[in-house]
Amino acid sequence: MGQGNIEAVFSVVPEGSVTSPKGFKAGGLHCGLKKTTRHDLGAIVCEVPAAAAGVYTTNVFQAAPIQVTRESIGAGGVLRAVIVNSGNANACTGKQGDADAYEMRSGFAEALGVAPEHVAVASTGVIGELLKMDCVRSGIAELPAKLSTSYGAADDFCQAILTTDLVKKEVCVSVTIDGQTVHIAGASKGSGMIHPNMATMLGFVTTDAAIGSEALHKLLRQATDLTFNMITVDGDTSTNDMLVAMASGLAGNSELTESHPDWAAFAAALRYVCEVLAKAIARDGEGATKLVEVQVRGAESDEAAQAIAKTVIGSSLVKSAVFGADANWGRIIAAVGRAGQPVNPETVDIRLGDIVTLEQSRPVVFDEDAALEYLKGDTVVIGVDLHMGAGKATAWGCDLTYDYVRINAAYRT
Amino acid sequence: MGQGNIEAVFSVVPEGSVTSPKGFKAGGLHCGLKKTTRHDLGAIVCEVPAAAAGVYTTNVFQAAPIQVTRESIGAGGVLRAVIVNSGNANACTGKQGDADAYEMRSGFAEALGVAPEHVAVASTGVIGELLKMDCVRSGIAELPAKLSTSYGAADDFCQAILTTDLVKKEVCVSVTIDGQTVHIAGASKGSGMIHPNMATMLGFVTTDAAIGSEALHKLLRQATDLTFNMITVDGDTSTNDMLVAMASGLAGNSELTESHPDWAAFAAALRYVCEVLAKAIARDGEGATKLVEVQVRGAESDEAAQAIAKTVIGSSLVKSAVFGADANWGRIIAAVGRAGQPVNPETVDIRLGDIVTLEQSRPVVFDEDAALEYLKGDTVVIGVDLHMGAGKATAWGCDLTYDYVRINAAYRT
Repeated sequence: MGQGNIEAVFSVVPEGSVTSPKGFKAGGLHCGLKKTTRHDLGAIVCEVPAAAAGVYTTNVFQAAPIQVTRESIGAGGVLRAVIVNSGNANACTGKQGDADAYEMRSGFAEALGVAPEHVAVASTGVIGELLKMDCVRSGIAELPAKLSTSYGAADDFCQAILTTDLVKKEVCVSVTIDGQTVHIAGASKGSGMIHPNMATMLGFVTTDAAIGSEALHKLLRQATDLTFNMITVDGDTSTNDMLVAMASGLAGNSELTESHPDWAAFAAALRYVCEVLAKAIARDGEGATKLVEVQVRGAESDEAAQAIAKTVIGSSLVKSAVFGADANWGRIIAAVGRAGQPVNPETVDIRLGDIVTLEQSRPVVFDEDAALEYLKGDTVVIGVDLHMGAGKATAWGCDLTYDYVRINAAYRT
Repeated sequence: MGQGNIEAVFSVVPEGSVTSPKGFKAGGLHCGLKKTTRHDLGAIVCEVPAAAAGVYTTNVFQAAPIQVTRESIGAGGVLRAVIVNSGNANACTGKQGDADAYEMRSGFAEALGVAPEHVAVASTGVIGELLKMDCVRSGIAELPAKLSTSYGAADDFCQAILTTDLVKKEVCVSVTIDGQTVHIAGASKGSGMIHPNMATMLGFVTTDAAIGSEALHKLLRQATDLTFNMITVDGDTSTNDMLVAMASGLAGNSELTESHPDWAAFAAALRYVCEVLAKAIARDGEGATKLVEVQVRGAESDEAAQAIAKTVIGSSLVKSAVFGADANWGRIIAAVGRAGQPVNPETVDIRLGDIVTLEQSRPVVFDEDAALEYLKGDTVVIGVDLHMGAGKATAWGCDLTYDYVRINAAYRT
C-alpha cells in the first residue's frame, strides 16, 4: 500500500473527531427510534457555509433521504448541516417517506435558522417502515442544544449513527497545506449489508480546508473507489448508503485545486481517512472476529486486480475458512478463478501473511501450525500474485461466523 | 413454470436410478480416499458405445479430470464409462495431478477392456492435495466386480460421489418416443461451493434414447442453463463441476433430432431430470434447513429475470432472514435493486408464498403470524413481479445457517 510513504505527509490526531476541523459542531441523542436507549438522532453542523460533496448507493431503490441529500448538495454544493437517524432507513416508504425526509430537512433547518437546501439528511436501519415522526420532531427540537465542539459531543454523534455496529468509527488527521494546519476527520457506520458500491454504510467527513465543491467531489469519488468500494461484509448493497464531505475553509489555506502544490498531500490524507473508516467497517462486520485484507498484485490492470480482490474477499467459503483458522488456499484460488478476469492458471502465488502456500500455481509444503497460529490473529492478510502485469488492488472484509447468522436471522423480529 | 403441463408428457419412475435406462450398470465402493468408511469411488458403465455430452465449470482453474473428460468426449462424442472419486478434487495438483487423472482413465479402461478415450473421469473433494493413487488403483481393480443393473448398485454409485452432502440425489423418468418407452435418469452431488455457472456439483445423466452426441449436448446445455445454473448455495464456483450425459440408444426409438415429433417431449423430460437434481442440491446446501425458490416475472427479458432471481437467491441477508423465518422483504427488494438490471422502483410486488408483502413498491399490511408460519416450512417461495415485461425465471437456493459456518470453518482441518 505504500502507506508508510503516504503517512509522511500527514499525522493522525489522537482523540480527533468530526469536530476537530475548525467550524464544526456535532451532537446526538435518543429520540425513540431505537427500541434500546442508544442514541438514534445526530447531526454535524458547520458555522459557515461548507463546500460539500456526496457519493451515494448504486441500488435502484434509493431511500428517501438519498434523494433529499442529492437535492441539497445539487442545489449549490453547499451545506450547513447533516442530520442523521438510525433505527429506521426510511426506504421503500412511498410518498409518506419522501415527505418525512423533507420534513426532517426543513425541521432541522428551521431549528438552526439556515436554508433547507443547506441541510443533508441520512437514515439507516430497517427498510419499509414509516419513521416515527413524533420522535423525530421532538429529537430535532432538542438537538441544537446538544451541539458542541467537544469530543463528547462528537462521540454522541458517532454513537447516534450506529445500528448493529459494535464500535463507533472515527478518525482525524492533520496535514500541512500552505504552511497552515488543515484537519480532515471522519465518522462512519456500517456492519451488515456491506459490499462494494457503497453498501449499508454512512460516512461523514469534515475538514477545515479551503476547497471547492467540485474538487472535493472529485477527491471523495477517487478515495471512495479505493476504500469504501473495496470492502465487503456480505455482498449486499443497501438502499441508503451515503458518504458526505463538508469543508469549512477556515484553516486559512489558499483554495485547493489540482494545480495547488499540496493537492496530492490533501488527497492522500483524505484517502487515509476514508481507508481507516472503511477498514473499521469491515472489521466490525456483523459477527466478525477479524479483519481480512486481500492484496492482489501482478494483474493485467488495476481494475482486474480490484475485481479479483473483491471476489476473494466476498467468498463465503474463504470467509468461513478464515473464521475456522483453516489455511484452505484451495478456496482462495477457486475464487480467483471465477472472478471473470484474465488469470494465467500456471503462474499464481498465494500467501497467508508471510506464509507461502502456492507458488506458480503449485502447492508449497508449509508449516500448518504456523499458519493456524497466523490465522487465529485478529488481522489476516491474503496475498495473491498473478505474475501477469503491474495491476494491483487491496480489498477488506471479515470472516463469516455463527454470529453473522444469529444477527441476521433475527434482525427485524 | 408450467411444470404441470410438461409433466403430462413423462412420468416419474419410482425407485428409478441411473441403471434404469437400458444398457447401464453402476457401482461404488470405499477405496480409502475419505477418512470415513463411506464410498468414495464409483462408476457408471454402458454395455454399448453411448453418445455422450458434457458441460463443465467456467472457473479459470480447471481440475485435471475436467481436462481428461473434455478430451474423451471431444474425441468422438462417445463414452463407455465414467469413473468418479470423492474426497479429493485432484485440482491445483500440477503435472502429477494430470498424470493421476489420466491413469484413472487408462486404468479403468483397461479393467473394462475399452478404449481410454471412451472413459470420462470426475473428482470432487479437497483442492490441492495429490490423490492417493494406491487407494485409487486398488479401488479400480475391485470396481468392475461391483457393477450391476440393480438398484443397490446404483445406490452405491450415488453414495460414492457425495462429499458434505447429507442425502443422495437421483431421479428417473420415462417418456414415450416413437411409441417406445424411453428412460432418462440422473444422479448428482453438491452441497457447498454451489453457484450459477456450475459450482461444485457433479451430475450424471443416463438415457436409453437414441440421440446423437451433438443433439444431446444442445439439450443438456439448454437444460443446464435453466436448472443447474439457476441454483446457488454460497456464490462460489468450483474447479471441478461437470455434468455428463450418456445415451445408449437401446430404447428402440428412431434417432432424436430437432425435427423429430417427440423432440420437445424428450427435452422437457431431460430438463425435468436436471431440475429435480438441481433442486435436490439446493435443498441439501451445506447447513440448509429449507429449499428457497425465487420466482421472478414481469422483467424486461428472461435474462434480466435470471440475473435478478440469482441475486435474490444469493443474498446472505435474505438467506439468513429465511433461516430465522423473518418476513424481511426489505432485504429482498434491496437485492432486486442491486442486480444491475432494469427495474422500475415504483412497480414491484413481492410475496412470500401467497402472502403479499409489497405491492407496487408499497408495503402491504400482512399477517405476521401467518408469514412466520409459512417461513418455518421446509420450502419457501419468494415471488417478485416487476410489471415491466414478459421476462421470467426461477432460481433455487437455501437458507444460511449456523451449520453452514460450522461445516466450512472446519472442512479441511
